[in-house]
Amino acid sequence: MIDCIIVGSGVAGISAALTLQSNRKSFLMFGSKSLSEKIEKAEKIHNYPGLADVSGQAFVKALQAQLSQAEIEVKEEKVAGVYALKEGFTILTQDGTQYESRSVILACGVESIKQIEGEENFVGRGVSYCATCDGFLYKGKTIAVVCTTKRLEHEIGYLADFAEKVYLIPMYKNVEIHRENITVIRKMPAKIEGKMRVENLVFSTPPAEDIPAALPVNGVFMLRESVSPAILMGGLQTENGHVTVGRDMSTNIPGCYAAGDCTGRPYQYAKAIGEGNIVAHSVSEFLK
Amino acid sequence: MIDCIIVGSGVAGISAALTLQSNRKSFLMFGSKSLSEKIEKAEKIHNYPGLADVSGQAFVKALQAQLSQAEIEVKEEKVAGVYALKEGFTILTQDGTQYESRSVILACGVESIKQIEGEENFVGRGVSYCATCDGFLYKGKTIAVVCTTKRLEHEIGYLADFAEKVYLIPMYKNVEIHRENITVIRKMPAKIEGKMRVENLVFSTPPAEDIPAALPVNGVFMLRESVSPAILMGGLQTENGHVTVGRDMSTNIPGCYAAGDCTGRPYQYAKAIGEGNIVAHSVSEFLK
Repeated sequence: MIDCIIVGSGVAGISAALTLQSNRKSFLMFGSKSLSEKIEKAEKIHNYPGLADVSGQAFVKALQAQLSQAEIEVKEEKVAGVYALKEGFTILTQDGTQYESRSVILACGVESIKQIEGEENFVGRGVSYCATCDGFLYKGKTIAVVCTTKRLEHEIGYLADFAEKVYLIPMYKNVEIHRENITVIRKMPAKIEGKMRVENLVFSTPPAEDIPAALPVNGVFMLRESVSPAILMGGLQTENGHVTVGRDMSTNIPGCYAAGDCTGRPYQYAKAIGEGNIVAHSVSEFLK
Repeated sequence: MIDCIIVGSGVAGISAALTLQSNRKSFLMFGSKSLSEKIEKAEKIHNYPGLADVSGQAFVKALQAQLSQAEIEVKEEKVAGVYALKEGFTILTQDGTQYESRSVILACGVESIKQIEGEENFVGRGVSYCATCDGFLYKGKTIAVVCTTKRLEHEIGYLADFAEKVYLIPMYKNVEIHRENITVIRKMPAKIEGKMRVENLVFSTPPAEDIPAALPVNGVFMLRESVSPAILMGGLQTENGHVTVGRDMSTNIPGCYAAGDCTGRPYQYAKAIGEGNIVAHSVSEFLK
């Protein structure tokens, strides 16, 4: 079994990976080869010691070069769930592959877009975060898809292949996906309501003439760059949407650690890198 | 009154300074223009994200350039004591100057050389950390001076001007100070003993033919690059020599924060920089 799985390829995950590598631990890092949309988009970073006024793009390039020099690869698979076993963890990716490890580092960032009221209540009962996992369940049905980034547009297409009707609520400009069964709504929904399962996606006012404020849907897909850690892993202790951690970055689940934005503010590179460093040492200690 | 005083110019202090500057807080940073002996001496840093395999010297240069670009100056005065007032703090430097601030960040690192048994017991009763503060008290007396770095050799000279006899225990190579009343001992002392005041500096075996294992001295000066935070500031809660801090880097004293090596392991650049970032945000929040 490998020593550790790192969920996330932002600066916290990278910092953890570099130090785990120095400590000669075996690990996998899941994320994106472009590392982090958040870093990429940063215009100038003013307070990162050692790199004065670096641009986000230059920072990403430096990190990519450093990872490649250290022979650390980012696995471009989206993690759908983390499960604590009697010993170690199983990580399930969205395409259904399973990985096992002795420890886990959650470095999955925070969602810049808040949860919708009712969202958490209906997880598994009409709310889904994974098109490839759950898309087939909505064959011939009506769904809403809230999508925060163009990068995930291919997942919308995947969903539109199954669903009869897709209401797309994009949180980005220049929607490029066009299908007969996709209607774009440019308004943020207020809540999800239903009894046993999702019944309506509710807007504060009707988003269009032919679309009611309480839009009947069979399911709501939330396609975000990062998944909330509490949704990723059942039983994980969180507070105001942040993973509760100790000074050693340990969570309430033995062997499960967290670092970076997902543990709370300040949402800053230096803070995330520091926590990535600490977490790697704590994991190395745990593995003894 | 200025917003904050940062004690220490290692990476934690620098990270805090850069972020306080971004937050438009007024502050002073005490330390060394060469920043940190520890960084300077680092051969290669393997796990600092963004700067692959950077040498300690190159890292120091990058940090110096960044500070100068941000118009942050390091005040080269050694802090002798930090005192909590009813509101704010007084910082006393070794040359007797006083500064006041609304908050304090202790980023003074850890001593790489452990305390000597009995050292803490005799602080103010024969044990001193400050040549210029206490040197004159030993006029005509016999003292021992444990010195960890050549940079502080001028303080030995200052002490030798007052004392009749100085036993110098250097923790560095190539002692360059030579005086008739200085005898160099190349052996680490085991403890300091005495009743009300320091009486003997004790070695495990006689360090030389004419020097007994229990060497009678009136005082012991410990000249170290960094002073233990607990000695710097009375009432500060520590544990195993590290300042006890919360996740927000607050100490048990309101308005007093700590960051970097002085808060505990891992003694790593990324960890110190992360804590420097967090502490600057916490101080900014405190100042509201």
